[in-house]
Amino acid sequence: MSPSTLHDGLEALRTDRAHEPAASSAVSRLASEFGTPLYVYDRETIVSQFRSLRAAFASRFPKLRIHYALKANGNGALLAVLRAEGAAPEVVSLGEIVMALRAGWAGDEILFTSSSKGPEEIAKAVEIGAVLNVDSRDELEQAATSAAAAGKRVRISFRINPGVDPHTLHHINTGIPEAKFGLHLDGGLARAAYARARELPSVAITGIHCHIGSQIMETDGYVATARKMLAFVRELKRDFGLSLEFVDLGGGLAVPYHDGEEGLAPAVLAAALAPVWSEAMAALGGDPPALWLEPGRFFVAPSGFLVTRVNSVKTTTVKTFVNVNAGSNTLLRPAMYAAHHRARVVGASGAPEILDVAGDVCETGDILAAERRLPRPRAGDFVVFLDAGAYGFAMASTYNARPLPAEVLVDGDTATLIRRRGTFEDLFRDETK
Amino acid sequence: MSPSTLHDGLEALRTDRAHEPAASSAVSRLASEFGTPLYVYDRETIVSQFRSLRAAFASRFPKLRIHYALKANGNGALLAVLRAEGAAPEVVSLGEIVMALRAGWAGDEILFTSSSKGPEEIAKAVEIGAVLNVDSRDELEQAATSAAAAGKRVRISFRINPGVDPHTLHHINTGIPEAKFGLHLDGGLARAAYARARELPSVAITGIHCHIGSQIMETDGYVATARKMLAFVRELKRDFGLSLEFVDLGGGLAVPYHDGEEGLAPAVLAAALAPVWSEAMAALGGDPPALWLEPGRFFVAPSGFLVTRVNSVKTTTVKTFVNVNAGSNTLLRPAMYAAHHRARVVGASGAPEILDVAGDVCETGDILAAERRLPRPRAGDFVVFLDAGAYGFAMASTYNARPLPAEVLVDGDTATLIRRRGTFEDLFRDETK
Repeated sequence: MSPSTLHDGLEALRTDRAHEPAASSAVSRLASEFGTPLYVYDRETIVSQFRSLRAAFASRFPKLRIHYALKANGNGALLAVLRAEGAAPEVVSLGEIVMALRAGWAGDEILFTSSSKGPEEIAKAVEIGAVLNVDSRDELEQAATSAAAAGKRVRISFRINPGVDPHTLHHINTGIPEAKFGLHLDGGLARAAYARARELPSVAITGIHCHIGSQIMETDGYVATARKMLAFVRELKRDFGLSLEFVDLGGGLAVPYHDGEEGLAPAVLAAALAPVWSEAMAALGGDPPALWLEPGRFFVAPSGFLVTRVNSVKTTTVKTFVNVNAGSNTLLRPAMYAAHHRARVVGASGAPEILDVAGDVCETGDILAAERRLPRPRAGDFVVFLDAGAYGFAMASTYNARPLPAEVLVDGDTATLIRRRGTFEDLFRDETK
Repeated sequence: MSPSTLHDGLEALRTDRAHEPAASSAVSRLASEFGTPLYVYDRETIVSQFRSLRAAFASRFPKLRIHYALKANGNGALLAVLRAEGAAPEVVSLGEIVMALRAGWAGDEILFTSSSKGPEEIAKAVEIGAVLNVDSRDELEQAATSAAAAGKRVRISFRINPGVDPHTLHHINTGIPEAKFGLHLDGGLARAAYARARELPSVAITGIHCHIGSQIMETDGYVATARKMLAFVRELKRDFGLSLEFVDLGGGLAVPYHDGEEGLAPAVLAAALAPVWSEAMAALGGDPPALWLEPGRFFVAPSGFLVTRVNSVKTTTVKTFVNVNAGSNTLLRPAMYAAHHRARVVGASGAPEILDVAGDVCETGDILAAERRLPRPRAGDFVVFLDAGAYGFAMASTYNARPLPAEVLVDGDTATLIRRRGTFEDLFRDETK
């Protein structure tokens, strides 16, 4: 029998075989080499997620560009993996522009989306030739002025609010009319924006964009959105003679966060969108726009594991708490969105009990996993949270004066430190008094 | 007419006179010298908050020690102000121990409370002679072992879960039976913990502790808690002969977050607790314990202002959004707890409209101030959020790759940078690949 690799151990955790030696030996090895709390990403999972999406769409959409939404996880090592696979960067800030350029992408490969861009952010997008995905008329005028001052033309798309509810969590439901994002099709706001952009000599209209939310399970919202967007693309061509280079339909494919759950398979979404797209392209005629997509979570969430150590276990009159050495400062999603992350106890093998895995932040709401059936661990054992690759480290803070965790990339049986653990010095390095 | 100071300008913002020249000149000066987004703290407010609490309690409780809960805001300059006023440190992690020692406090002045302490945290508390506020039987045994190994005695109190609901937000409601904190009086769990601690030669029992939550408006919960705690203190003396050095009744005094609202005045709380305390002390006899308190928010929240710049303004078919250059990464409380921070528009003087002040994070939930009546600003104007001194910078992150804001301390007309603005370099300084 060949020895198991780190990748095998992570797969055992993922598929609810935390009791197997492969799982405990992988976690012990990672924790002992890099300490805890620790974010671990499995390279193979990132690559397979990316390729599954590309394969599903490339066969049906001949002109295709897949962006990676850096906000999900901006570690340069992950960006290198995704860039090598052919992803382009979708960024939301000047900081992410810096990170994308540092990862080797060219300025003109970058799509910059944000509802609130500062003048220095707009100027940088103009300078490097990024596509500025404009969110408002106010921003359009600022972009035109900025480009004119630089003696350049700014490449723009508009983010459209299509008024579609994909039935996901409100916090991340971005295409509904009351959301802060985009220009509404309703009321002619989007049409008026394109009309105005045509009048601005320093503006080059290149595309159109929407993104209706995250963790979307059904294709209906996507299809309804695509119909509205593509009808509008035809209107822009018919009335304004505009031929766009791309139509960006966003990201948002759901990934499973529970055992036995399925996400939204790329092939299902691609198959649902293909006839709508083909029909619209045929009606549009000429050189058709490319389909752009921009998932973030889909590529990296399932690749990530948060490894924590048990500090203590306490049974009260009401509950049993497993207190670990990470909390909402390390993984914010459970406290912020009541998000569910699967938790695996490593190192204990007793009969399952109902346990709350509590974070180390001094807030009642800091419960990382509530009322789970798990074997009762002891201090020193490990609890691993799954699907922590997206919006995990990215949202981490040093709240309660806990330094940021380290990050490690696993490739087969090799583990590489890709971000050093934070230090206490970090907490006051920038203090000046 | 003498020119207005920075302090005057901040006071004008606080008292809803944002249209006055003092307010706009203070904000313009701070923004121009230090940039935005910017946390600004008014020294005089911190001092007056601390003194109001001390005065209210010192007159009624002859043995009194006031702790400051560092987690509210750990900037060393604020710690220096509070230390000079006579506060002791209440910490929740090894990082906060490091910060307290760095601020000049002695190890034996520190009270260390946390429901999840790691072995290295317990060892440090033992080493420096801090009071370890023990949360579970598991932790008690670990502390005893750690102290024995170090050849020391660890000074402990137990955090008690009194089973009292002070009717505040669930996230910060820490004294209810289902909370993760403390040893329950119910079921004899707390009594059994003291009984066990007496058997451990490396453990020195010094006190008892509780903390029932934050933003508490009514005295009822405090009084009910004090009665239960003090009855238990008498039981410990009667049955175990224990004479405690202190009884810590926590913090949690509400501060106002709305115009026209009142918080819980220290004098009101002190007056409500005094008869309960006196009666119990008389019954207890001997050398009575000191009253310990540990507010955080009360001292620093009202002193803090988050100054943001308007990037753009957008009217949709449904709402008007004022997009500023800060978001839930800068001030998490609105997105996390639906917390209300007063927002002041500086630099605009039109008739008020209903506006949403939207953050720059790419999430629908990132609205810093929803549906407020404010004059409509333009790009370049400022929006200032009040009462941002507690759990503001402390909970900030670099989510969306936005560097951390700077912090400034205002004293009269002097503004001192107390933390440099973060840089893009911070986002990847610790990356190793």
